[in-house]
Amino acid sequence: MPTTAGRFITFEGADGCGKSTQTARFVDALKREGIEVLHLREPGGTKTSEAIRELLLNPASTVSPLCELLLFEASRAQLVTEVIEPTLKRGMWVVCDRFLDSTSAYQRSGRNLDAKLVEEANKIGSNGLVPDVTFVFDLPVAEALRRATHGGSDRMEGEGEAFQENVRQGFLQIARENPNRCEIIDAGGSKEEVFSRVLKAAAQHGITLSEDR
Amino acid sequence: MPTTAGRFITFEGADGCGKSTQTARFVDALKREGIEVLHLREPGGTKTSEAIRELLLNPASTVSPLCELLLFEASRAQLVTEVIEPTLKRGMWVVCDRFLDSTSAYQRSGRNLDAKLVEEANKIGSNGLVPDVTFVFDLPVAEALRRATHGGSDRMEGEGEAFQENVRQGFLQIARENPNRCEIIDAGGSKEEVFSRVLKAAAQHGITLSEDR
Repeated sequence: MPTTAGRFITFEGADGCGKSTQTARFVDALKREGIEVLHLREPGGTKTSEAIRELLLNPASTVSPLCELLLFEASRAQLVTEVIEPTLKRGMWVVCDRFLDSTSAYQRSGRNLDAKLVEEANKIGSNGLVPDVTFVFDLPVAEALRRATHGGSDRMEGEGEAFQENVRQGFLQIARENPNRCEIIDAGGSKEEVFSRVLKAAAQHGITLSEDR
Repeated sequence: MPTTAGRFITFEGADGCGKSTQTARFVDALKREGIEVLHLREPGGTKTSEAIRELLLNPASTVSPLCELLLFEASRAQLVTEVIEPTLKRGMWVVCDRFLDSTSAYQRSGRNLDAKLVEEANKIGSNGLVPDVTFVFDLPVAEALRRATHGGSDRMEGEGEAFQENVRQGFLQIARENPNRCEIIDAGGSKEEVFSRVLKAAAQHGITLSEDR
């Protein structure tokens, strides 16, 4: 495994697609290979970003689509400059549960904000940083909603099924537009089946990991 | 006085230039003319924007220049879409203590962020809204710092004198670049003297107000 330079890997997909479980499993597999890796989630990862997360996901918040976009980018900017960039520079890997593709899928495809505007905002918020590899988890909306049954829904999860379908299609569009970086992962079936697909896709990018836990 | 269409007027300048006092006085003068006017300040003016303000100005916050820029824009986006645009549409006037020029002066000239990037962010955050008239208060930094002696300083005011000088020059640059919209107001002397200058500058834009209080 190449460990001289840090690699930046992101996990994307709609709520309920099993993305967070798979992210944690992938991070464990990297660690078993002796790779130093930092596991992050968006929005969050710094004190300021977590405060922004609270504002964003609180169902009591009144947040316009434009404000929402900029809050996600603000949270991202702090995470990128305070944590991700310095970590990659030290040669560590960074695995992040959601990154700029979530903004494209939710704010562009979900909220119908102008595509060019979201792209510009993404460039500013990510400080120009693009992931090396992105796993895009795909699952029919009805199945995803069935899975996302944890207690109470946040402000984003409280959106309706049509919104979630637009978000799903948004993620698929991103994957089609960025074939070198993105791997679509069928998120149906058992956790083991899905993780096997992740490992197979990772191998396409020179990341060979074992399934053993 | 033309009252059929709402006008959007902003007051800009470094801390300690007396801008807030003058804004309030100007709003009072408009009201005496029977003009319906909403008095706002940035960052703030909505529940979400005030929460962002708290994050931005709290000296305990760790906020990178890029995150800071995007938080100001997020706060602005909420204020513009939730309050300013609907108010102007109803024919009311809006007077705002700080708006996008503060972001140009503080984040571009003060923090040295890329000018094009700040301009893009300003466009997104303001939803393309530009003030009809902007009063830019100018005062030597030493004098402004002497005046800004209220209890304790916030995260922005805690910056040094060189930063404040860059901010001052940033405001003057904006005024030079937007001569039709901006009026530089010499903020030296008594409150009465400064307000006379504001009224004289306002008259240049067809806004004739009386000095009586």
